[in-house]
Amino acid sequence: MGKDIPVSPLAPKSFPSMPVIGGVRFSTVEAGVRYTGRPDVMLAHLAAGSTIAGVFTKSSTRAAPVLDCQEKIGVHSETGAAILVNSGNANAFTGKHGVESVKAITSAVAETLDVPMARVFTSSTGVIGETLPHDRIVSKIHNLADTLSEATIGEAARAIMTTDTFAKGSCAEVQINGETVRIAGIAKGSGMIAPDMATMLVYIFTDATVDQPVLQSMVSALNKQTFNCITVDSDTSTSDTLLVAATGASGVKINETSLNFMEGLRRVMLDLAHQVVRDGEGATKFIEIGVTGASSDADARTHALSIANSPLVKTAIAGEDPNWGRIVMAIGKSGAPADRDLLSIWFGDLLVAEKGWVSPGYNEETAASYMRQTDLQISVDLGLGGGTAHVWTCDLTHRYIEINADYRS
Amino acid sequence: MGKDIPVSPLAPKSFPSMPVIGGVRFSTVEAGVRYTGRPDVMLAHLAAGSTIAGVFTKSSTRAAPVLDCQEKIGVHSETGAAILVNSGNANAFTGKHGVESVKAITSAVAETLDVPMARVFTSSTGVIGETLPHDRIVSKIHNLADTLSEATIGEAARAIMTTDTFAKGSCAEVQINGETVRIAGIAKGSGMIAPDMATMLVYIFTDATVDQPVLQSMVSALNKQTFNCITVDSDTSTSDTLLVAATGASGVKINETSLNFMEGLRRVMLDLAHQVVRDGEGATKFIEIGVTGASSDADARTHALSIANSPLVKTAIAGEDPNWGRIVMAIGKSGAPADRDLLSIWFGDLLVAEKGWVSPGYNEETAASYMRQTDLQISVDLGLGGGTAHVWTCDLTHRYIEINADYRS
Repeated sequence: MGKDIPVSPLAPKSFPSMPVIGGVRFSTVEAGVRYTGRPDVMLAHLAAGSTIAGVFTKSSTRAAPVLDCQEKIGVHSETGAAILVNSGNANAFTGKHGVESVKAITSAVAETLDVPMARVFTSSTGVIGETLPHDRIVSKIHNLADTLSEATIGEAARAIMTTDTFAKGSCAEVQINGETVRIAGIAKGSGMIAPDMATMLVYIFTDATVDQPVLQSMVSALNKQTFNCITVDSDTSTSDTLLVAATGASGVKINETSLNFMEGLRRVMLDLAHQVVRDGEGATKFIEIGVTGASSDADARTHALSIANSPLVKTAIAGEDPNWGRIVMAIGKSGAPADRDLLSIWFGDLLVAEKGWVSPGYNEETAASYMRQTDLQISVDLGLGGGTAHVWTCDLTHRYIEINADYRS
Repeated sequence: MGKDIPVSPLAPKSFPSMPVIGGVRFSTVEAGVRYTGRPDVMLAHLAAGSTIAGVFTKSSTRAAPVLDCQEKIGVHSETGAAILVNSGNANAFTGKHGVESVKAITSAVAETLDVPMARVFTSSTGVIGETLPHDRIVSKIHNLADTLSEATIGEAARAIMTTDTFAKGSCAEVQINGETVRIAGIAKGSGMIAPDMATMLVYIFTDATVDQPVLQSMVSALNKQTFNCITVDSDTSTSDTLLVAATGASGVKINETSLNFMEGLRRVMLDLAHQVVRDGEGATKFIEIGVTGASSDADARTHALSIANSPLVKTAIAGEDPNWGRIVMAIGKSGAPADRDLLSIWFGDLLVAEKGWVSPGYNEETAASYMRQTDLQISVDLGLGGGTAHVWTCDLTHRYIEINADYRS
């Protein structure tokens, strides 16, 4: 994967210049899990006392590493910790063998880095249902431990890519009482993206000092506004994992009321979520869907996701066709309340439809010209109440079919 | 549309030889609603005393003709009746103008055929949100009335096509106490197909004598087993309509206990439902998904539709890839209960996965060879209870994107 695939036209111009996060070091290696000629395993080593919060896929068929992480996430410990991620094989639906692979990897990491197994978190991403050749990873762990560096988070971002066309990173610096706290995160994911939860794999690091329960409640709340609001193809991975680790290296203590920190973390999470959509398989358009005037926030979200996941809406956008009738269709089918005659629809600032019909000022050519932009905004007001939602998605193109009709073979 | 589009590779060899249904006559005309050079309006005239049952889309943005049909469907009358259908324009989300178009057409049909307006049913199918140029239809109604014939149901099937690549018809003859009752139906629909309800437009005629409430309860029940079990793209039309008319011309009275009649009607409905899937936009595979062992029938259906609507499953099948991991993913994300370690999955008779892992007897080449067939069966047993469901769908191909990325322009 990767080499012959053109970079998404929606990609950021470059990988950001990431700050060093004290207390976390990275390394990567070519283990040949599935891919050859590229790094496919990354290791992050976290300083003693680091706290780690996580959110995971709700899939009932979730992968062995996810179940393992979930067991470990709330455990209090003052030791060091580690995160190891491989690409190419998801170690999902691999029966007992899957559990054994996780044990083999986590115990080898624990031993090599001298941290408890309960503090070693792993993720695997790639093909489902094939045995993970974990020996290839285990045999590289000394190599990984020997090459740890604070400066190589960008290489870590590249090692976790599967069908991604660009490495995803985001960072923020936050002032807390005159002191600086840094946040830096990486993500992978381009298909099988839909809420609960939509992350694919995301790892965020900060040098703040945050108690685990505080960090967990922040991450859970922010996840709902960010990764859970993106969808590429309505399909939810068995491996979705978001880990946020706070090393405490800055010495700056964060509590529930640190709004600056929350806002910095939110920006990093939203930026990474948007980058995942911008790398949606075959995507040529980045689409924000805003719904207002619904009976409740939950109804607004139902409508927004119905629009975002509709193949007919997504193909119309791919064809740069301002086919607002398909948006009406998607609202109608969503199951949430809507009154046809109270609906209003906008493309950007263009009022397209209102009062059950096309807007008198609607001009097809103006709308078609709007649709030729790469970043689009579709807004719907239902005229029923105060419920609102925002979701982000991409279009559905030939390239999605190409990628997914023969990903495995 | 139509001329340059190749016929679906899944199409039946030919349109069936349909029996004459006494008491119903058909005509078609080129009204130029949107298409030119092909009939785009069909009229069916029903004898006095005909009873009519209907099921309609549950979309909250349903079209004006649907709302009009729903008002009329239960009304008792001994008069004649009529059904008029146009293709090319759905008269959906057309505000007050939509209602006026329905009035103009139904009143012209009522006057010309001398039936009450309350007995004139219309459907419109095609683009959403554009005003229906109903004058073009109204001006042809005398022409339609003058050319009615018992023998032209096949032409009616062609007149209602939009992106369909073949005309859809099905028929049955049923013996009731030594007497013959005939059933013949036509359908259109190839995209925007998903339950509640999935028909697109379906018109079925029988020469049996059936009281309206009996006919309505049969049709509602059978709809749940047939049209509500198909999905092409998870998108639900604003215009879905199923009308079943019983003319009574055979003189054979049907009641709730006429199982032969129920079975004949079920066969026609299921056959038409399958033909709609076989003409799914861009379809190259016809897929039956059977789920057993679920906690309830409703849960089984949730899993079956999650598999059927998953873009990743549908693209894998398009690529003839036995990627059963994506089926595991679709079960996991469905929201209904599943235990990863109790799941079994079959492709046809091939046991692919069991007990949370690939089956020991699984052979990738055998499975790949199975996937090259056009008609596929995917079976899942959840090992939890007695709930079952069957749904039918097709694959997701480049052709779907082609058709839908510039349907309107």
